[in-house]
Amino acid sequence: MAALSTTLPLTRDSVCWAHKVVKEHVHRTPVVTNQTLSELASTPRTVDDLKDTRFAGKTPAKPVLRLWFKCENLQRIGAFKVRGAFYALHKLLEEPGWLEGGGKEKGVVTHSSGNHAQALALAARVNGIKAHIVMPEISIPAKINATKGYGANVVFSGSTSVEREAVTEKVIAETGARLVPPYDHPDIMLGQGTLGLELQDQVESSFASKVNPAGQALRGVYAAATNKTKGNKEGLDAIITPCGGGGMLSGVALSCEGTGIKVFGAEPSYQGADDAKRGYESGERIPTVSSLTVADGLRTPVGVHPWSVIYERRLVSGIFSVTDEEILKTMKLVYERMKMVVEPSACVPLAVALFDEDFRSLVEKEAGEEGWDLGIVFSGGNVAVDALGKLLAGEK
Amino acid sequence: MAALSTTLPLTRDSVCWAHKVVKEHVHRTPVVTNQTLSELASTPRTVDDLKDTRFAGKTPAKPVLRLWFKCENLQRIGAFKVRGAFYALHKLLEEPGWLEGGGKEKGVVTHSSGNHAQALALAARVNGIKAHIVMPEISIPAKINATKGYGANVVFSGSTSVEREAVTEKVIAETGARLVPPYDHPDIMLGQGTLGLELQDQVESSFASKVNPAGQALRGVYAAATNKTKGNKEGLDAIITPCGGGGMLSGVALSCEGTGIKVFGAEPSYQGADDAKRGYESGERIPTVSSLTVADGLRTPVGVHPWSVIYERRLVSGIFSVTDEEILKTMKLVYERMKMVVEPSACVPLAVALFDEDFRSLVEKEAGEEGWDLGIVFSGGNVAVDALGKLLAGEK
Repeated sequence: MAALSTTLPLTRDSVCWAHKVVKEHVHRTPVVTNQTLSELASTPRTVDDLKDTRFAGKTPAKPVLRLWFKCENLQRIGAFKVRGAFYALHKLLEEPGWLEGGGKEKGVVTHSSGNHAQALALAARVNGIKAHIVMPEISIPAKINATKGYGANVVFSGSTSVEREAVTEKVIAETGARLVPPYDHPDIMLGQGTLGLELQDQVESSFASKVNPAGQALRGVYAAATNKTKGNKEGLDAIITPCGGGGMLSGVALSCEGTGIKVFGAEPSYQGADDAKRGYESGERIPTVSSLTVADGLRTPVGVHPWSVIYERRLVSGIFSVTDEEILKTMKLVYERMKMVVEPSACVPLAVALFDEDFRSLVEKEAGEEGWDLGIVFSGGNVAVDALGKLLAGEK
Repeated sequence: MAALSTTLPLTRDSVCWAHKVVKEHVHRTPVVTNQTLSELASTPRTVDDLKDTRFAGKTPAKPVLRLWFKCENLQRIGAFKVRGAFYALHKLLEEPGWLEGGGKEKGVVTHSSGNHAQALALAARVNGIKAHIVMPEISIPAKINATKGYGANVVFSGSTSVEREAVTEKVIAETGARLVPPYDHPDIMLGQGTLGLELQDQVESSFASKVNPAGQALRGVYAAATNKTKGNKEGLDAIITPCGGGGMLSGVALSCEGTGIKVFGAEPSYQGADDAKRGYESGERIPTVSSLTVADGLRTPVGVHPWSVIYERRLVSGIFSVTDEEILKTMKLVYERMKMVVEPSACVPLAVALFDEDFRSLVEKEAGEEGWDLGIVFSGGNVAVDALGKLLAGEK
């Protein structure tokens, strides 16, 4: 990464600046509406539905929700991570002395077996920068090949974080490569936040034209969207995003600063992966997580920089968590009802909207009968096709 | 169906008329572009790729293809079939005496376990018409429930076509319901053809604005689309659709009549499911098919009415077939590269573009280095999620 001294302040304006930088490299991914899922989200669950859940005995909430999905699963490399990667490299190229010191040849390095690896590899190739990606030997061949396919130098390591970090240090010592972490840096946060700007703009265009992003008149539950008497009459009332390391959640929160749009985080609860939620409620960031939740992109603790935005500046209004079973049930709905391939991590916000009674009660209380227009971020679609079969079969 | 004497002539104008009727009931489904798949389609296969195939020993073709996907998997009920169903019921409502004779209460009937059942059930409900759907007892519960969910009266039968037709006759005798067949009727053909009009129009808009349907500047391989010196300078050069009973293929062919856009059909070859291709080449329609191809929507022989358009009037320029293995390989690509849920039948046209050397040679010969803008119809996305897992796992 570029030195912290060169980063822009963490404000909405800086996200706008980052968007000017990255927009020529990333897709302005579509926003889609869905009648069936909005109706489902707006249908109270039954007492019976809640019986064997953490909400047993509660009165089912009656939220009204119109859902607007930001499809970053259709982004380049299949996930939002390219936004942060392109912006981070732009800042590095601008850092005084980096280029002159042979930066492009020394390159950049990260350790990741997931979307960040491919994002950095692609952004590096486009910018003519060498990329070293440290991946565990046990990574699936498809991911290794995809990363190599973007021209990166793949370096293998053991699979514990200690082993991975040791190999990364070695690469840095040998090559002089600059570390580009997956989330815990202001430049990454500003880059990821650009999706929030697009989402706001795309929904506002729909409100103004009374036509959905697919070019059809707003109808069904969406017909009510533009007749709100309270909330944000010009577009979204709230956005909910997945929260792993918090890069995207904090970036989107920055993109909404001063707009009146509330921002929420969504996490898996399995084996304590809901570290952000627990930290948010206890007032202290939880620095380690060890969970094998099916939402494999969200197994990381929230980083220090994201935390400053999410919690310390209170730019996130709340964090909610769901079970792995609820995540897989949601993924099945997205496949069957939206015909969209999403990875488990990407389903967590919708799972909150459908199944978390705490969130649903909050919507009922704040929005009443008029309801909320809620932006939901589908963060990525990278799921191996054979793993997919197993995941979906296991859900029944 | 309405009496044949009331049908409009099989012309492009009639498809336009049908579109006026159905457009308020069906989605104008999106058209999407895809850089990766267009590049793949435009990359010659290697001699090695062809070794164990029906093209062994041939010189790999060098077609240039820019692909434009019409996403009827995002249509209501998840498939194009609603178009024909809505138009057929409109014509029935207009038939002199039908309404006055208690037609709505007598209702309509079909035998289908697939997309046509749900399409007819939905269209009947919207029009306040009773629907009887004859389904084999062995149909999967999800399909039975979906059909019941649209308010249809589901009547069970054995699973052979003789048993299904016998039960259908019985329903007709008892209720006076009118039969609405899945494809072999001019009204169904005209209804399905409406997707062809939209596809042409959507691509022409992209050419005129130099912006793809997602609102981004045409780039990569698509940048060349609007600089053609031959072919159709305003849009598509050709469209390829799946061919089962031929309702959609013939309807789309009618929608292209007089435009200069060539239309092709795509079939599975497994166990003789390529009846249309064989009939087209031999000059005689093949009236029966018995195949368990994975493309389960395409296990039917081409109907008499579609055949008149496809073959007798030569409005279809050729029919190509692919193996089940090629279909599944294509489905995997669509999941992984487009993040789109499609059913096996919907993958057949893209499989032809990627794997059929006869088709690819034809494109090379006719289009040369400038290539073709090819419309590809994703006909539907209804695949049970557990079946999906098995299909995709079996592909490897």
